[in-house]
Amino acid sequence: MRLAIPEVVVLRLPEYLRALEQLAGEGVYLVSSQELGEKLQVTPAQIRKDLSYFGHFGKQGKGYDVKRLIGELRRILGLDRDWRLAVVGVGNLGRALLRYGGFSQQGFKIVAAFDTNPKVTGKKVGPVVVQDVAEMPKVVKSEGVHIGVVSVPASAAQEAVDRLVQAGVRAILNYAPATLRVPPSVYIRHVGPVSALESMTFYLKDVKG
Amino acid sequence: MRLAIPEVVVLRLPEYLRALEQLAGEGVYLVSSQELGEKLQVTPAQIRKDLSYFGHFGKQGKGYDVKRLIGELRRILGLDRDWRLAVVGVGNLGRALLRYGGFSQQGFKIVAAFDTNPKVTGKKVGPVVVQDVAEMPKVVKSEGVHIGVVSVPASAAQEAVDRLVQAGVRAILNYAPATLRVPPSVYIRHVGPVSALESMTFYLKDVKG
Repeated sequence: MRLAIPEVVVLRLPEYLRALEQLAGEGVYLVSSQELGEKLQVTPAQIRKDLSYFGHFGKQGKGYDVKRLIGELRRILGLDRDWRLAVVGVGNLGRALLRYGGFSQQGFKIVAAFDTNPKVTGKKVGPVVVQDVAEMPKVVKSEGVHIGVVSVPASAAQEAVDRLVQAGVRAILNYAPATLRVPPSVYIRHVGPVSALESMTFYLKDVKG
Repeated sequence: MRLAIPEVVVLRLPEYLRALEQLAGEGVYLVSSQELGEKLQVTPAQIRKDLSYFGHFGKQGKGYDVKRLIGELRRILGLDRDWRLAVVGVGNLGRALLRYGGFSQQGFKIVAAFDTNPKVTGKKVGPVVVQDVAEMPKVVKSEGVHIGVVSVPASAAQEAVDRLVQAGVRAILNYAPATLRVPPSVYIRHVGPVSALESMTFYLKDVKG
């Protein structure tokens, strides 16, 4: 059942969640797929179809109960529990991630940060003191790290990932612009400014002035 | 024709491109969909199907010509030309983006940066001197900016986007965790650590120890 849900649908759910949370903040209790679609620039039919993978959330002619749908989406996405993060690589990007306030609002808690540079280790950045990568196996266990965030340069990324996997981390968010190998049991996702831009230009190339 | 290509396929092309560029760097001339799939953890059938949207690139039993496929993918993605970027918001994340070396390798050139903070404007960060947002309309024109990168806090994001759109920018990469409104003629894409994590937890929630 889980595998039948297209990844592209899963990728849209956080967008829905964010829009609904904004509506809730504005005091909105009910929203139609029309209104939600307008906010997100998605067709109402697309929204109804996407949500239908997970159950029946709207009432015909009444729309969606905003608070209930937020709760359901958070449960579906696994956001009704806490996730513990470790950041590997405390350069400019790592520092930005460590100081970013948006994680904790959604149940993500940065519990550790690692680097190899002795100028960085031992310093407090954001909520944690940066530790040497040699400490990783011990800290991953003691802090119960679920997700490793890789923000090292591309040339160091495979080693960072190998260390995380060896320490027992089973999910990796990779910011380094490199294709990385992980065992099949490890879930890896690549993010990064360049890949986001590269798929954007597909849609732009014909409109460029 | 363009519209018939699923966005999820387009989103995979930069991954293919990155893997192929790595193979080319290792001196590989020919690659089978099997080998490429192994590198990317995608089934060979998926790769063949994805590429079939754009033409015939492989020879039966011979595999893909790595260099030729790189060229084709770069052309398909619009990466065979230069794109000019402006970064709005020079905090930690903006600074990391401005100093990130990976853009120029793929034809993305940061030509401007804006902020409202007088402690930041006038300073050189990465390749550019940060300018006040009031200069945006003039600079977007003189520098020929194609893409605006929004790295301000969520509360300031809609204003930053409005300013970019008013200045004539037609494509926006948004890092702020907020749902933003743009006219239909403007292409906006949201990136950000939190949405990447949120869709990841969907796949993790049942394996969490």
